[in-house]
Amino acid sequence: MYDINKIRADFPILSRQVNGQPLTYLDNGASAQKPQVVIDTVTRAYAEEYSNVHRGLHFLSNLATEKYEAVRGTVTRFLNAGSESEIIFNSGTTQGINLVSYAWAAPRMQAGDEIVLSTLEHHANIVPWHFLRERQGVVLKWVDPEPDGSLDPQKLLDAITDRTRLIAITQCSNVFGTVVDVKTICSEARRRGVPVLVDGSQGAVHLPVDVQDIGCDFYAITGHKLYGPSGSGAIYIRSERQAEMQPFFGGGDMINDVTKECVTYAAPPLKFEAGTPGIVQTIGLGAALEYLMDLGMKNIAAHEATLASYATERLAGLNWVNVQGTAPGKAAIFSLTMEGAAHAHDISTILDKKGIAVRAGHHCAKPLMAHLGVSATARASFGLYNTKDEVDRLVEGLELCHRLLV
Amino acid sequence: MYDINKIRADFPILSRQVNGQPLTYLDNGASAQKPQVVIDTVTRAYAEEYSNVHRGLHFLSNLATEKYEAVRGTVTRFLNAGSESEIIFNSGTTQGINLVSYAWAAPRMQAGDEIVLSTLEHHANIVPWHFLRERQGVVLKWVDPEPDGSLDPQKLLDAITDRTRLIAITQCSNVFGTVVDVKTICSEARRRGVPVLVDGSQGAVHLPVDVQDIGCDFYAITGHKLYGPSGSGAIYIRSERQAEMQPFFGGGDMINDVTKECVTYAAPPLKFEAGTPGIVQTIGLGAALEYLMDLGMKNIAAHEATLASYATERLAGLNWVNVQGTAPGKAAIFSLTMEGAAHAHDISTILDKKGIAVRAGHHCAKPLMAHLGVSATARASFGLYNTKDEVDRLVEGLELCHRLLV
Repeated sequence: MYDINKIRADFPILSRQVNGQPLTYLDNGASAQKPQVVIDTVTRAYAEEYSNVHRGLHFLSNLATEKYEAVRGTVTRFLNAGSESEIIFNSGTTQGINLVSYAWAAPRMQAGDEIVLSTLEHHANIVPWHFLRERQGVVLKWVDPEPDGSLDPQKLLDAITDRTRLIAITQCSNVFGTVVDVKTICSEARRRGVPVLVDGSQGAVHLPVDVQDIGCDFYAITGHKLYGPSGSGAIYIRSERQAEMQPFFGGGDMINDVTKECVTYAAPPLKFEAGTPGIVQTIGLGAALEYLMDLGMKNIAAHEATLASYATERLAGLNWVNVQGTAPGKAAIFSLTMEGAAHAHDISTILDKKGIAVRAGHHCAKPLMAHLGVSATARASFGLYNTKDEVDRLVEGLELCHRLLV
Repeated sequence: MYDINKIRADFPILSRQVNGQPLTYLDNGASAQKPQVVIDTVTRAYAEEYSNVHRGLHFLSNLATEKYEAVRGTVTRFLNAGSESEIIFNSGTTQGINLVSYAWAAPRMQAGDEIVLSTLEHHANIVPWHFLRERQGVVLKWVDPEPDGSLDPQKLLDAITDRTRLIAITQCSNVFGTVVDVKTICSEARRRGVPVLVDGSQGAVHLPVDVQDIGCDFYAITGHKLYGPSGSGAIYIRSERQAEMQPFFGGGDMINDVTKECVTYAAPPLKFEAGTPGIVQTIGLGAALEYLMDLGMKNIAAHEATLASYATERLAGLNWVNVQGTAPGKAAIFSLTMEGAAHAHDISTILDKKGIAVRAGHHCAKPLMAHLGVSATARASFGLYNTKDEVDRLVEGLELCHRLLV
């Protein structure tokens, strides 16, 4: 039983007002709010149980290390990774994908080697590959979405050549909500010897994820979108790929020995986790993932699917609104443009006066904006705590925008 | 008036017990505890004021952005940087120094170019330079400390040749507490055209810092040692050096434009801050630095100098204890070994039974351990909230160790 009122009560910020109106938070695609259990976990970690990890023998250090390392097991369960050592903690997807770019891809790729990616990608899954293009002549091959915003796995697979060294693909578009069939892509790419990186920034928030079932080589998640602390995150890296990686950050914890003459490295995952980590935010991430698993990712996905259907139906009634991306099975993310040239930023500003938080801009997906021929959209992105009432409030807000702007 | 009882009351963890004893927390060199104002700031940021930053136009996004960006001004004041744009946020010193290594040093250095560093350095200020040695043939030149643990600036300057491209030096040894005269080093290095990176991980905690007065090019700090949240930090980079840097992490916020064909970059500091940042921990870092500035870094330094003198005097009375590093003016960091072969880990374990948290190990300074001819020390590192009573408790604990172990 998905008790939405009880769930909403878990999130303290949802009871606040904004501009004299109840907060309608529809900016979950940018970052999600935090349940009290996450906030309490963070508070307790600082107020009662804080110390640096790994390096101590005293009580607080052992306690903090135990709490911190337990999260590796939590992430392993959340993603159904094969082993805890395949989970590397970081500050989020941007760091995760840059790790792959610098530590795995850069030393292996030659000029003319190819990376296949889709036009749906977020800049976090674009710019690290542009670095390889700029710095070492790697070629980026782009696959466009279909007119409805869906992505044809076959087109991605057709882009593979004997120079393809990586496919880098989102599981869920942060602009359209399109869910990409990454399992099909991984299965065929694997047969052809091409590793696949899946950007799970949105996918892991909206769908149950099983990295072994997907068959990917890399799967990046970001804690702040998963109802966890800012600056938390992790990346799953299949052990065969880890074995091919050089270290990325140098510093404490990732070494075996350091002399004046040379350095030897720790075994993964520590090899890729230099320095004092984000101790408390990682512990908080653990609380967030336990919260999600307690609710059940299937139940969350079902709730959000209901919201997506209802929003699709209500928005279809506004014939001056264009919903960008209408692929079947899409997540509850709605990028809107309005006929009559109302700018997305104006829409966001007017909705804000009604307490409705949506995001206006390019959503860090400028190639997709260019593909659509727009500079910006207003994006309403729903989360596990949103309601049909909030869909109605959004629609009323858009009607107000239409009256005021067009 | 430095009211130590009032200050101690600001730190909730200090009133807890460990192993049935009042906590005596002397592991500040590894990480410092957090005042209530930092914890409250973090809690409020999540419970009332949370959103992603920079990318929104709605109320919560503007509020979070304002709070987050205000910290740039706080760090600028704390370090007396010349401009807010010289402050780049990150997750701590390890990320800061790796940024310099990857984004400034790696693209500029050729095989045979030299980096001068001291044997006092922490692995965070060693391993990133070993990467350049391993990957591109850069030569590391080491300067040893004097027998008392001090570092002669002239010896460092004498190590400069026409191939020297960087001096990387700590301001305060995390093992000895030695304070290095970085101002003299920077002044002469600058005259000779050699940039200087100062690792301020410990220095900024124990001393008032003025990066313009020091004259360094890079100054890295880490929030969790500065009584702020884990995973927070910043690095000061002189604008001339920023202009020489290529971007490091690719992702959101650091771009000007992204197309399928190419990418152009934002102006610093955003150019070096990709992706959703550590929003809440940075806001918490701001609260920590304001707390320190309210107390006054001079007052903190004076308090800790009193503790250092008293501890030096008391430890001198234990003629079976060796204090590693006795340079004049050292910070209140005491690395101890015990005659009669008691292992540092045993010392730590026994002290822990008395509620005294010290760290045993190589302190991420293995070249220094090798120089000393020891594999580990037990390190008692004091912070702004420690007391002479706690020095006495440490001495009593060490006497117990001596009785039990030797």
